[in-house]
Amino acid sequence: MAITLITGGVRSGKSRYALKMALSYKRRLFIATAVAFDDEMKKRIEKHKQERGNLFKTIEEPVYLSRALDGANNFDVCLIDCLTVWVSNLLFYKKEAQIEAFFKALDKITSDVVVVSNEVGLGIMPDNTLSRRYVDLLGEVNQKLADVSDRVVFMISGQPLNVKS
Amino acid sequence: MAITLITGGVRSGKSRYALKMALSYKRRLFIATAVAFDDEMKKRIEKHKQERGNLFKTIEEPVYLSRALDGANNFDVCLIDCLTVWVSNLLFYKKEAQIEAFFKALDKITSDVVVVSNEVGLGIMPDNTLSRRYVDLLGEVNQKLADVSDRVVFMISGQPLNVKS
Amino acid sequence: MAITLITGGVRSGKSRYALKMALSYKRRLFIATAVAFDDEMKKRIEKHKQERGNLFKTIEEPVYLSRALDGANNFDVCLIDCLTVWVSNLLFYKKEAQIEAFFKALDKITSDVVVVSNEVGLGIMPDNTLSRRYVDLLGEVNQKLADVSDRVVFMISGQPLNVKS
Repeated sequence: MAITLITGGVRSGKSRYALKMALSYKRRLFIATAVAFDDEMKKRIEKHKQERGNLFKTIEEPVYLSRALDGANNFDVCLIDCLTVWVSNLLFYKKEAQIEAFFKALDKITSDVVVVSNEVGLGIMPDNTLSRRYVDLLGEVNQKLADVSDRVVFMISGQPLNVKS
Repeated sequence: MAITLITGGVRSGKSRYALKMALSYKRRLFIATAVAFDDEMKKRIEKHKQERGNLFKTIEEPVYLSRALDGANNFDVCLIDCLTVWVSNLLFYKKEAQIEAFFKALDKITSDVVVVSNEVGLGIMPDNTLSRRYVDLLGEVNQKLADVSDRVVFMISGQPLNVKS
Repeated sequence: MAITLITGGVRSGKSRYALKMALSYKRRLFIATAVAFDDEMKKRIEKHKQERGNLFKTIEEPVYLSRALDGANNFDVCLIDCLTVWVSNLLFYKKEAQIEAFFKALDKITSDVVVVSNEVGLGIMPDNTLSRRYVDLLGEVNQKLADVSDRVVFMISGQPLNVKS
């Protein structure tokens, strides 16, 4: 199996590119980590759902990604969108231990995996401790994932830039 | 005609690189989208003007870029600096419809075009709705422009990185 | 002598990559610019110190980098970590003139130099003047350094991307 990390900024075309990649496979699983806390979030989630249509079997899993991955071996590709929200959820629910579980599950999976994440550390650092803790944790997760990935793509204005391949 | 998008962060050398590109042409048009709301802005605009000297015919157009482009066909190159401020102006004046008009005008232009924009979605997202709306809209405009561009350059510490060419 | 600039976001693996580069040399100098203002900073500094162990001779120099560089010629490599904090210190102590002194010292040095910095201008601009002044100044320093560097590396999720080489 091959792991691909698609990273980049907000509205850089990460999800669209990841979808396109996944559509080249036959049996497709989509793992959504977002939970609708408010109307804005609800809208974003709805928009993404419509873009996917019924091209994927979808699982919504905000916290226990490792469990969701356990059911992924019946599929040719598993698209996880996205780690950005997942790491935020882990902090909120105090479930950081799920990170290790995720990497263990990833190590055992047989289907190809495409993971969407964000770069969030390229602006001025926010002056609150929680945000800095979030930036640190997501950065560490991204580094770990890139390390075990076969391919890392950085999206800029919708264009893919190969960082590792 | 060829379209080039120069994107990157604040103080990454975008405008300087775009100027250098444009100077290789003979008849040059500069379309400035910035309006001086305060003294800081006024200073930045003045500084950029001095850097250009009289090497360009300059038009100041904060909103109706499509109209400014209509007069660009007498020139060999048209440099637009920048979309970042333009999209901000569109939100301020509620003129988002100008985006479609801009892409239509771009489609008909016969001179080469160099456009400067910014990546603004690579930091922690601001917790106000207007900023997020801005990040989304600019990201969509950047993606659309990159899609129709012949070349996309991402500036890092003043160095150009070819993303599409 | 050769200069390498390692830049990127927070938690993108810049320091780790710079350390790895420097370890290929025999006599190693580490110039740390960070001063522990608070407990969070103290922790980060301690963590970095432990990662280095006794593989380097370490100098702590928050402001006068040029002086620290004067003693670097007895070493094969000089690793400066990082400009991000240094420029912030310069603003705090009103010592911006040290920038010119730094580039002069860099011009005379005979050992190889590896410099760590940050890209901080790729998010939404903060609405306070000091932060914008900081972004501008660090951006200018990064551009100048990249210009005289033999190699510039942009780190994304721990992966190095060659921007200049």
